[in-house]
Amino acid sequence: MSGLLGTNVVTQIGILVHDIEKVSEAYAAFFGVEKPAIFWTDPMEQAQTEFEGNPSPARAKLAFFDMGSLQIELIEPDHHESTWRNYLNEHGEGPHHIAFGIKGMKDKVELLAKSGFPLQQKGEYTGGRYAYIDTFPQLKVLVELLEND
Amino acid sequence: MSGLLGTNVVTQIGILVHDIEKVSEAYAAFFGVEKPAIFWTDPMEQAQTEFEGNPSPARAKLAFFDMGSLQIELIEPDHHESTWRNYLNEHGEGPHHIAFGIKGMKDKVELLAKSGFPLQQKGEYTGGRYAYIDTFPQLKVLVELLEND
Repeated sequence: MSGLLGTNVVTQIGILVHDIEKVSEAYAAFFGVEKPAIFWTDPMEQAQTEFEGNPSPARAKLAFFDMGSLQIELIEPDHHESTWRNYLNEHGEGPHHIAFGIKGMKDKVELLAKSGFPLQQKGEYTGGRYAYIDTFPQLKVLVELLEND
Repeated sequence: MSGLLGTNVVTQIGILVHDIEKVSEAYAAFFGVEKPAIFWTDPMEQAQTEFEGNPSPARAKLAFFDMGSLQIELIEPDHHESTWRNYLNEHGEGPHHIAFGIKGMKDKVELLAKSGFPLQQKGEYTGGRYAYIDTFPQLKVLVELLEND
């Protein structure tokens, strides 16, 4: 692997929706699985959310479906500017990102920025951190980096 | 698995693009892999392509990247009406479908239609056949069934 991420294993597909309750029910029925818990991302103070370089109060409701080798993540964003809200407003509902598990978040984000793929949003969650990289112009989908401790 | 497909393993993510040569080069560089062959889907006579119940001359250029547990499929459609062209015109470039390997295409398509998920497009390829199911209203992504002989 001489790629920028050091991995090509997709761990997650993130899909933007307007009504996470309704879409979660549809997934549960379609795939014959239990409807998972739906929860809010952590508030700004805890998640240290940054969007386009500035602290951001943006949050989203999330639901995760285990689909064999990867997860489908449903995302219902609030109305603050974020990678989720802006993409949803521009493209409508539908897939937003593919995610990869990486190590060394700071170095990866720097390497990607130097290579023409700027950081769009980042934040912390219990047990790790995420970064959305604006790969859309080149790859036609956003890439999310996930680093679990 | 009591779901409609009998599987929840995502085997492919399909992404619509305007310029498959350029986007393929970007994927090869980003992931550190070789640029794959780009080829046209078979002509209507051979593929027996049907879109919304009628024979269709629609074709697309395809490129496949092996990404560990699944493939990323880049799709550059021609200008005939198809699931690809219509979605691209409506949503712009970006992810279009997730695919699942199934057995018993005819029965699955009938079961899905009865359950509120109509067939949108189908066709044959060397060694198998595909069907795009219009799951977008419920799942916010299209589902493609792939049956390899």
